[in-house]
Amino acid sequence: MVRRRAIVMSHRVTGPCLRATSLDHVAAHEIRKRVDEALYAFVDDRRPLLGAVSADLTPLLTALDALLSGGKRLRPAFCYWGWRGSGGADLPEFFTAAASLELLQAGALIHDDVMDGSDTRRGMPAVHRRFEALHAESGWRGSAEGFGAGAAILLGNVCLTWCDEMYQGSGLPDDALTRGRPLFNQMRTEVMCGQYLDLLGQARGRQPDAHEMVETALRVVRFKSAKYTVERPLQLGAALAGSPSVAALSAYGMPVGIAFQLRDDVLGVYGDPAETGKPAGDDLREGKRTVLVALTLERASAAQAATVERLLGDPELDAAGVETLREIIVTTGALDACEEMIDRYASEASAALAAAPLTADARAALSELTVAATARTV
Amino acid sequence: MVRRRAIVMSHRVTGPCLRATSLDHVAAHEIRKRVDEALYAFVDDRRPLLGAVSADLTPLLTALDALLSGGKRLRPAFCYWGWRGSGGADLPEFFTAAASLELLQAGALIHDDVMDGSDTRRGMPAVHRRFEALHAESGWRGSAEGFGAGAAILLGNVCLTWCDEMYQGSGLPDDALTRGRPLFNQMRTEVMCGQYLDLLGQARGRQPDAHEMVETALRVVRFKSAKYTVERPLQLGAALAGSPSVAALSAYGMPVGIAFQLRDDVLGVYGDPAETGKPAGDDLREGKRTVLVALTLERASAAQAATVERLLGDPELDAAGVETLREIIVTTGALDACEEMIDRYASEASAALAAAPLTADARAALSELTVAATARTV
Repeated sequence: MVRRRAIVMSHRVTGPCLRATSLDHVAAHEIRKRVDEALYAFVDDRRPLLGAVSADLTPLLTALDALLSGGKRLRPAFCYWGWRGSGGADLPEFFTAAASLELLQAGALIHDDVMDGSDTRRGMPAVHRRFEALHAESGWRGSAEGFGAGAAILLGNVCLTWCDEMYQGSGLPDDALTRGRPLFNQMRTEVMCGQYLDLLGQARGRQPDAHEMVETALRVVRFKSAKYTVERPLQLGAALAGSPSVAALSAYGMPVGIAFQLRDDVLGVYGDPAETGKPAGDDLREGKRTVLVALTLERASAAQAATVERLLGDPELDAAGVETLREIIVTTGALDACEEMIDRYASEASAALAAAPLTADARAALSELTVAATARTV
Repeated sequence: MVRRRAIVMSHRVTGPCLRATSLDHVAAHEIRKRVDEALYAFVDDRRPLLGAVSADLTPLLTALDALLSGGKRLRPAFCYWGWRGSGGADLPEFFTAAASLELLQAGALIHDDVMDGSDTRRGMPAVHRRFEALHAESGWRGSAEGFGAGAAILLGNVCLTWCDEMYQGSGLPDDALTRGRPLFNQMRTEVMCGQYLDLLGQARGRQPDAHEMVETALRVVRFKSAKYTVERPLQLGAALAGSPSVAALSAYGMPVGIAFQLRDDVLGVYGDPAETGKPAGDDLREGKRTVLVALTLERASAAQAATVERLLGDPELDAAGVETLREIIVTTGALDACEEMIDRYASEASAALAAAPLTADARAALSELTVAATARTV
């Protein structure tokens, strides 16, 4: 899954062309507030349905509430700027449609944590661990781990179906929803396919052709992150608003999405746990075959590569092991190479944004978002 | 999941009021043919999208093709009779909407097999086992089991999102789809909730109050099977056709759905593997806390109950162990009690059907389906 971490917020960004206007700042808070309102209202509306089935379902809602309390609402924000940048007004129905993307994300994260065996998410216990704990505390039969995984699979499924229910029931006119549908559909298939390719990449491990390994990792980033996090949400907003230039938004959406994920990969190795919500070096412990790792192996000596292969994915990796890997990533020049890639994709995105078929206020807001989420922090 | 097994087809059914007319026989085959055509066309349309992402996605489609080649198309059939029984014509768009239910079922089965650790489905390897084998054959890194489970979770998710993509893109008029939506949505939430309650029931195991255990198992049957397999598909068809009497169909749909699942539970213990597509006694090996098991524990002596608790859910349970459990289920009178319940629910369904707000041909076809799927076979 897209492991988007705490995004460096715009107050860290300086420089004349990037400085946010006070209007933009208000908008960012306002978007989040309205997305949250729509999201929580949707979930609240469904409590009676689950309550009528059984009080035993309460833990599912509790786990979902906790998960939804975190997160950056990044996809709805991109969807909003695609919409508003194409002339859409601040309608409640739109915020409902946009907030539905958070349910897709919630479902994907819940399942992702099961697949990765992650302990935490958004700084809290992962959903499958919550249910594992419930099983253990209750002294139930069978495997607590199996129960946790099963409950998480099912709650993830509820989120996936609620995503579609929320989108389709948003109250936007049928013709708008129909225009958005191809993007809404492709996005969902693409993220699942991207995740499978990620899984496959982890399973295949190091490949003989180091350059191909970088390409493989980038392909995962394209489908699992760039399209899913930026390109499709942005296009969806534009399509809902009736933009005739939906396809042209890829020129901005794809490179910025790639830059976002590469920044996230760097934060996954060097980021501050207080900001990422994950223990330091967690990506290394999970053995994520990121572009950063591929760049490292591409540049590593035989001895360095052997060390990487030995330590990467070791669930017991300690602080010293994390430090060893961090050093190899720096000394091979992989970190610099990754930073250069981020700069290149971010520049490409900025150039495309300047020419994007969006209103000036949307371009300004997106520019700010781009810099905020791709700027160096280490 | 609803473990619907090979349904005894109508040629086994005799008796004047139940004998199928030749028209009904043609219709049953024709429904299946048209549902299959719609289903395969939908999947075929999506091959290029996945192919464009990567050839590495081919195993996902291969696994899905294999799974979709089996199955009874029971939910689309009920949806069809709800539609036609409410005056709906044999439109291709309708068959597409109805066939979408098979994708929900496919996703649910794929995930269910992961949760249960099942080896087979529809007489073939379960999806997660296919991917486990792919991992092992390919000599990949890490856990083959983890890879299999991850791939199956993702393919199940693709099926869940394709279900609503197929429904919404069926080509039926927007007003029809909007009428069907509440049922389509409730069905999807209910089945996931029902599955969670099932998981919980397995985890809690034997409860002090034996009668409550039967009630708990019945609640799972209601949500996971009766609503999902019969009531909601039937109501969905009627709602799509504009019936003003959708709610009244529960009076038939719920009891027949319960009878179906109870018959399935009996087949899970006593059924012929050639017909069920599962090894003999597989439900016992998986430790399913069915109504049949609850009825057994309700009637068991302390010694019998201890034997049940010892053998039920033992993955290594051999033929002798299966036979021991089968005997206890018979000698306690639980099998007879379950057969009586099936008869009672089937009778209730028949009486409700006679008064159901459906056309005569739909009532005749549903009557046949009811008997076919609930008749004694052991």
